[in-house]
Amino acid sequence: MANSLSGDSVVDRVVRVISAFPEGSGSLQLSELATRSGLPLTTAHRLVRQLAAHGLLETGGGGTVRLGLRLWELVNRNSPTLALRQAAMPFMEDIQQVLNQNVNLAVLDGWEALFVERLSRRGSVANRAQIAGRMPVHVSSAGLALMAHQSKAVQGEYLAQFVDPDGKVTAETVRTLLAETAHTGFAQLAGVVDPDTWGIAVPVIDSRQHTVAALGVVVPLHEVRLQALVPALQTAARGVARRLRDSAP
Amino acid sequence: MANSLSGDSVVDRVVRVISAFPEGSGSLQLSELATRSGLPLTTAHRLVRQLAAHGLLETGGGGTVRLGLRLWELVNRNSPTLALRQAAMPFMEDIQQVLNQNVNLAVLDGWEALFVERLSRRGSVANRAQIAGRMPVHVSSAGLALMAHQSKAVQGEYLAQFVDPDGKVTAETVRTLLAETAHTGFAQLAGVVDPDTWGIAVPVIDSRQHTVAALGVVVPLHEVRLQALVPALQTAARGVARRLRDSAP
Repeated sequence: MANSLSGDSVVDRVVRVISAFPEGSGSLQLSELATRSGLPLTTAHRLVRQLAAHGLLETGGGGTVRLGLRLWELVNRNSPTLALRQAAMPFMEDIQQVLNQNVNLAVLDGWEALFVERLSRRGSVANRAQIAGRMPVHVSSAGLALMAHQSKAVQGEYLAQFVDPDGKVTAETVRTLLAETAHTGFAQLAGVVDPDTWGIAVPVIDSRQHTVAALGVVVPLHEVRLQALVPALQTAARGVARRLRDSAP
Repeated sequence: MANSLSGDSVVDRVVRVISAFPEGSGSLQLSELATRSGLPLTTAHRLVRQLAAHGLLETGGGGTVRLGLRLWELVNRNSPTLALRQAAMPFMEDIQQVLNQNVNLAVLDGWEALFVERLSRRGSVANRAQIAGRMPVHVSSAGLALMAHQSKAVQGEYLAQFVDPDGKVTAETVRTLLAETAHTGFAQLAGVVDPDTWGIAVPVIDSRQHTVAALGVVVPLHEVRLQALVPALQTAARGVARRLRDSAP
């Protein structure tokens, strides 16, 4: 039992170390990593050494630590999002080519939209490598498209705990947004990251009527082809769902 | 000390479980995961439960286990290859647009080329989502481009341990290939995965004269624009190196 208890704690510490890197940080100083993990420096140092021996972390000059190439490889050769991304990619490329818009693919994780793939319009490729970003449900069209098609129980749970950190939006407003999204079959929202853009997203609904992803575009506010964009997205979302079904074991 | 020893062992087991998923396997049965990790079923079961509680693994119906979305997110929002991929992506897209060829980006990891990014030519997007593949140095143009520009010490170490598993290629042949690659500044090799293709790759050399990546294309055997492809790749590789230098802290 002592082993088991000790084991629990080590697993927890490993997770804390791996999770301690803030988004896009690259490398951290060991002391900062220890602080962020809530671990004593000696414990952090020992764990980093052990994880680095397996390639899950990498240590550099000046006491810096970063996630290891081996960990990146392990996760990406076996990504939990691989089947979804493979099914979606041809359709995302179609949208990018035909509409020349930024295209994204998100899944619901907790009360947030997690972006698992992104294609930028030609000429704005800088963000393409940055995936794995998150947005709260109520401020992203992808989040609304995902949540609007969850069960009433899940939606109820979400709304019951909803608090806008900015104090601007009430749960009732979000409820109305979700109802509108469910009714129209697509979500649209003025850009939060970039106020000069709209986000538009539609759900990808699998054969069991589960909403497994949201497919969306980010378009300039002056974009007037909304009536053309939505059916194109909906058609693509049906194609993604069909490919997911065909590729299921 | 008992804690430390026990800790060593738990970290090792965590790594073994995370590493046990074969490429593209998606999910594994718990019993298969235990076998592949070399762990007793009860130990594997306990570790899976602990890791799943943190979202690093996910358990599904019928005793299946897969890598968790949370782990994917942690690694990809902070990818050790992010800076390289961000620097390379605009140039990779240029090559894809101008030459309409499959483009790839690899780093040297051990004695293998690890592919960290890939863009498929228009109309063949299926493989885009599959990165994190590996190829032995001597059968990939990327591997040759990477190794040909390593130090003599590293090359010597590589050649000293070289054994072709197929028994076809000798270390001497590989030495000659590396010398040719270093002399011409690019590597070319008939396709191994697809025998009707050529792979062509050039090194990305940073300001300290370290070869940090290889940029390559996969072209049909009948492609006759080799003389045009190589300078285009070399120009792009210089651009990648310049962006890496400009974005370095």
